[in-house]
Amino acid sequence: MSALEVVVWGENRHEQIDQYVRDIYPEGMHEAIAGGVRHHLGAGANVTTATLEQPEHGLTEERLAATDVLTWWGHKAHGEVSDEVVDRVQRHVLDGMGLLVLHSGHFSKIFKRLMGTSCTLNWRATGDEELVWTVESSHPIAEGIPHPLRIPAQEMYGERFDIPAPDELVFISSFSGGEVFRSGCTFRRGRGKIFYFSPGDQHFPVYRNDDVLKVIANGVRWAAGERTGVAPVNTRIDSRGDWGL
Amino acid sequence: MSALEVVVWGENRHEQIDQYVRDIYPEGMHEAIAGGVRHHLGAGANVTTATLEQPEHGLTEERLAATDVLTWWGHKAHGEVSDEVVDRVQRHVLDGMGLLVLHSGHFSKIFKRLMGTSCTLNWRATGDEELVWTVESSHPIAEGIPHPLRIPAQEMYGERFDIPAPDELVFISSFSGGEVFRSGCTFRRGRGKIFYFSPGDQHFPVYRNDDVLKVIANGVRWAAGERTGVAPVNTRIDSRGDWGL
Amino acid sequence: MSALEVVVWGENRHEQIDQYVRDIYPEGMHEAIAGGVRHHLGAGANVTTATLEQPEHGLTEERLAATDVLTWWGHKAHGEVSDEVVDRVQRHVLDGMGLLVLHSGHFSKIFKRLMGTSCTLNWRATGDEELVWTVESSHPIAEGIPHPLRIPAQEMYGERFDIPAPDELVFISSFSGGEVFRSGCTFRRGRGKIFYFSPGDQHFPVYRNDDVLKVIANGVRWAAGERTGVAPVNTRIDSRGDWGL
Amino acid sequence: MSALEVVVWGENRHEQIDQYVRDIYPEGMHEAIAGGVRHHLGAGANVTTATLEQPEHGLTEERLAATDVLTWWGHKAHGEVSDEVVDRVQRHVLDGMGLLVLHSGHFSKIFKRLMGTSCTLNWRATGDEELVWTVESSHPIAEGIPHPLRIPAQEMYGERFDIPAPDELVFISSFSGGEVFRSGCTFRRGRGKIFYFSPGDQHFPVYRNDDVLKVIANGVRWAAGERTGVAPVNTRIDSRGDWGL
Repeated sequence: MSALEVVVWGENRHEQIDQYVRDIYPEGMHEAIAGGVRHHLGAGANVTTATLEQPEHGLTEERLAATDVLTWWGHKAHGEVSDEVVDRVQRHVLDGMGLLVLHSGHFSKIFKRLMGTSCTLNWRATGDEELVWTVESSHPIAEGIPHPLRIPAQEMYGERFDIPAPDELVFISSFSGGEVFRSGCTFRRGRGKIFYFSPGDQHFPVYRNDDVLKVIANGVRWAAGERTGVAPVNTRIDSRGDWGL
Repeated sequence: MSALEVVVWGENRHEQIDQYVRDIYPEGMHEAIAGGVRHHLGAGANVTTATLEQPEHGLTEERLAATDVLTWWGHKAHGEVSDEVVDRVQRHVLDGMGLLVLHSGHFSKIFKRLMGTSCTLNWRATGDEELVWTVESSHPIAEGIPHPLRIPAQEMYGERFDIPAPDELVFISSFSGGEVFRSGCTFRRGRGKIFYFSPGDQHFPVYRNDDVLKVIANGVRWAAGERTGVAPVNTRIDSRGDWGL
Repeated sequence: MSALEVVVWGENRHEQIDQYVRDIYPEGMHEAIAGGVRHHLGAGANVTTATLEQPEHGLTEERLAATDVLTWWGHKAHGEVSDEVVDRVQRHVLDGMGLLVLHSGHFSKIFKRLMGTSCTLNWRATGDEELVWTVESSHPIAEGIPHPLRIPAQEMYGERFDIPAPDELVFISSFSGGEVFRSGCTFRRGRGKIFYFSPGDQHFPVYRNDDVLKVIANGVRWAAGERTGVAPVNTRIDSRGDWGL
Repeated sequence: MSALEVVVWGENRHEQIDQYVRDIYPEGMHEAIAGGVRHHLGAGANVTTATLEQPEHGLTEERLAATDVLTWWGHKAHGEVSDEVVDRVQRHVLDGMGLLVLHSGHFSKIFKRLMGTSCTLNWRATGDEELVWTVESSHPIAEGIPHPLRIPAQEMYGERFDIPAPDELVFISSFSGGEVFRSGCTFRRGRGKIFYFSPGDQHFPVYRNDDVLKVIANGVRWAAGERTGVAPVNTRIDSRGDWGL
C-alpha cells in the first residue's frame, strides 16, 4: 500500500497572538500534531499541513482530491472559514476522504455541517485532570492506548454534547470536577469515516502527550478509505437490470 | 394529555400546475395527509396545514414554537424554501419538535441539513408495486401495520440511500424491479425525533392508502416530545457543583 | 390504558443474613424498589414482588404471561436461579415483556443470556460518590432527572463493561476515583425492551434516593410494550402472498 | 503481517446422505468455502477445515486459541453440537476471534448464544432469484462486490429476522417473491467481530458464485482482530491508580 496522504489543518491564530500558546507550541499546533502522526505512522503516511491564512485555507480542490485523511483543529476563527471551502470538504468526506475533528473543532462549520446538530457542550478551562477510558477495547483506534490515558491538565468538556448518537463510542473521559464526556466517537457519513477526539487545547500541552498523538495516528489510519472521485447523485434507473451503479 | 399540535407542510406546486396530480389530490396532498392524521389520531391531535406560497412558508417563529410535530412533503421546489425558514425549523427540531419527512422530502434542504449527507438515492417512476416490510415489529410506528404493507403502484426508490445509519430501522421496502430501500428510518437530533418514511408520491394515490396514513399517524405520535424552548448553547461551568443545567 | 402489571424480583439473600443490609432495607430491597415504582407511577401500575426462595422463584408461566415489566436485582446467588426459569424469562422478554436489570444484576444468568457477552466490569466497594449524567436528554427515561443525579456513596462500577453496544446510551456515570461507566443503557431484544441501570447496591441506601427510584419508574413505563403471546418461530412461506404473518 | 489462521467449519451432514447435495458439492460445502477464501486471500490466509463428526467437532482449545477467524455453516444437526464446544467458541469470540456465520447457521447454538434472541426468520426453498444490495458502500466487506450481487436461484430468507439491531447493516437482499432480508450484518461482541451473511445453501450452488465467495473472504479479513488470550473477568480495583488493566 502506498503512503497515506494526510493533511493536518490548523487555524494557527492563537499561536500568532498569544505568547502563552506560542511558548507551548512555537512551531504551531498543526506542526505538533503533524509531527506526532509522522512519528507514529512513519513511512505509512505523507503528512503535510495547511492553515487558515493560506489561499483557500490551503484546501484547494486539487489538494483535497489527493488527500486520504484531513485533520481539523480550529477555535476562535471558525467564522472566518469560507462556506465554499466547507462545501468542498463536505463533498470530499462524502466521497470517502477521512476526517478527524479535534477538540474545539467540535464547533467548526464543517463538523456542525456533517452532524446536523448544534454540537454544543459544557466547558471549564481551569486545568482538570482528564482520564480517557476505552469503551471499545478491540477498536483499532484504541490499539496500544493505556486504560485510562491520563492527561494531567486539560480543559474540561462535559455532557451533554449535542451530537447524533455516534456509530461507535470508543472513549469516554472523566474530569477532576466529576464531569464525563464522549471523547472518542466515530461517524460514517457518505463514504467517509469521521473520528471526533476531544483531548487537545491551546493552553495545555496536550499535543506533547505521546499517547494522545498515538490515538490521532490510529484515527488517521482507521479513517483512510478508498476514494471514488464520484460524488453521489440521484440516479434514474430506467428499467430492471439497468443498474450500472 | 392535551392534543398534539401538528402542522402538515406541503409544497403544493404539482397540484397547481399538473392536472394529473390535481385529479388524484384535488384538495392538495397536504390536505390528504392532514386528513389521514386527523382520522387516525382523532381528538389526540389538532392538525393544520402550511404551504410554500404562504408568507414565511406558513412557518413563523410563533407557529413553530407552538408545534409538537411538523410533517414535510416537497419535491420540485426545494430550492425555493428560504434558508431562514430552514434555519428556524432546524432550531426547533433540536429543541424537541418532532419532524416527519415524507417521500421526495428526502432531498429537501431541511432533511439534508439535519442528516449532513447528500441524501441521494436511485429512482424509477414507472409504477412498481412496493412491499413495505416491518423490521422492528415492536416499534410503535409499526403498530397495527400489515406485514407487508402493499402499495400497488408507486415510484421506486432504491439503495444506496445516502443517509447516516439510522438510529432505528423500522421498515424495508422491495419493489417489482427487485430493488430494496430503507423506507422507514428514525433519527434523534438534539432533543428532536425525526422519522423518514418513503412511500408517497404526487403521481400515485399513495396518500389514499389507509395503512400508509396510519404509519404517518403513528409516526406523528412517536415523534412528539417535550419542548424546552431553550436552544442548546455552549455553557461555561465555573466550578464543580455549578451545574444548574 | 389499564394499569401496568409490574413484578419486582429480588434475590432477598443479603437481607436475610447480613444485619448491615437489613438495617438499610428492613423490608427487603425488592420492597424498597417496589415502593418507589408505586410512588412514582401511582395508579398507572400494579406492582408486586417475587423472590428467589419462592417456588419457581415466584415467576411461574402464568405470572410472567400477565406481566408487562419485570425488574431484576440479584447478586450473591445468581447461580441458584434455575435454568428453566431463565429460559422462561427470556422467552417472555422476546415476546414483549419489558425487563429492567439493576446494578449487580449485570452478572445474572438472564442478563448474560440476553446480551451474549461476559457482562464483566471493574468494581470497588469503598463508597465513591457517583454522578449520573444524562447523555440523551430527551429520552423518556431521563425525564425529570437532575443533571447530574448525585449519589453520595455508592459502589464503583467501571469500564470496560463487556456488553454489546447499547441501542441507546441514556446515562454515563463518573466516580470519585475518576472511573466512568455506561450506567443507563437500553437494548431491544425480540419484541422486548430492556433497560440496564447500574446505581443500586446492598451496602448503600441507594434505593432510598428518590431520583434513583424515579429513573426506575421511568424505565418501567418506557419498557412496557404490547404482548403477543406468540413466541417467534421459523416459518415456511409456501408462496408469494402467503404472508399471514 | 503473518497469514491469518482461518478455520472453515462445516456440519458436513447433507453431503453424506443426500445425493443431490453431493452432486453440487462433492468435496463438501466446507471445502468449497475454504477454496474460495484461499482463492481470494491467497498467501494472506492459511485456511483449514473442521467438521461435526471429528472429535470435539475439530475445535479443540488448542486449535481455537490459534485461530484468527472461524466460519460456521450448519443446518440439520445444530442440536448435535456439544454445549461444551459452544461455550468454548463463545469464549474465544469474546476474546477476539472473528466469527462468520453463514446462511442456516442463523439457527446454530453459537449464533443464538451470541445474539440472545430467537434468530428465527421466514423461508421458502423454491429457488427465488436473490439480489444482494449494498447499503454501506464504503464498508470493507462490500469492496469490489457488484451492486446488486445476483444469485439466480436461492432459498428465500425473509424478515422479520429476530436478531438485535446489527452494529452495521452492510447488505439487504430482495427475492423474486418480493421479500426482503438483512443479509449482511456485523456485530461486535466482547473483543470479537461477527459477520452474518445469509446467501448460501445446500440445494443451490451458491458457494460456486465467485462474488459470494469474495464477500466471505472480505468478511474473514474484516473480522480478524488481535487476540489477547485473556478472557474478561470482573476485576476489583482496590484504589485509584490501581488500574493495571
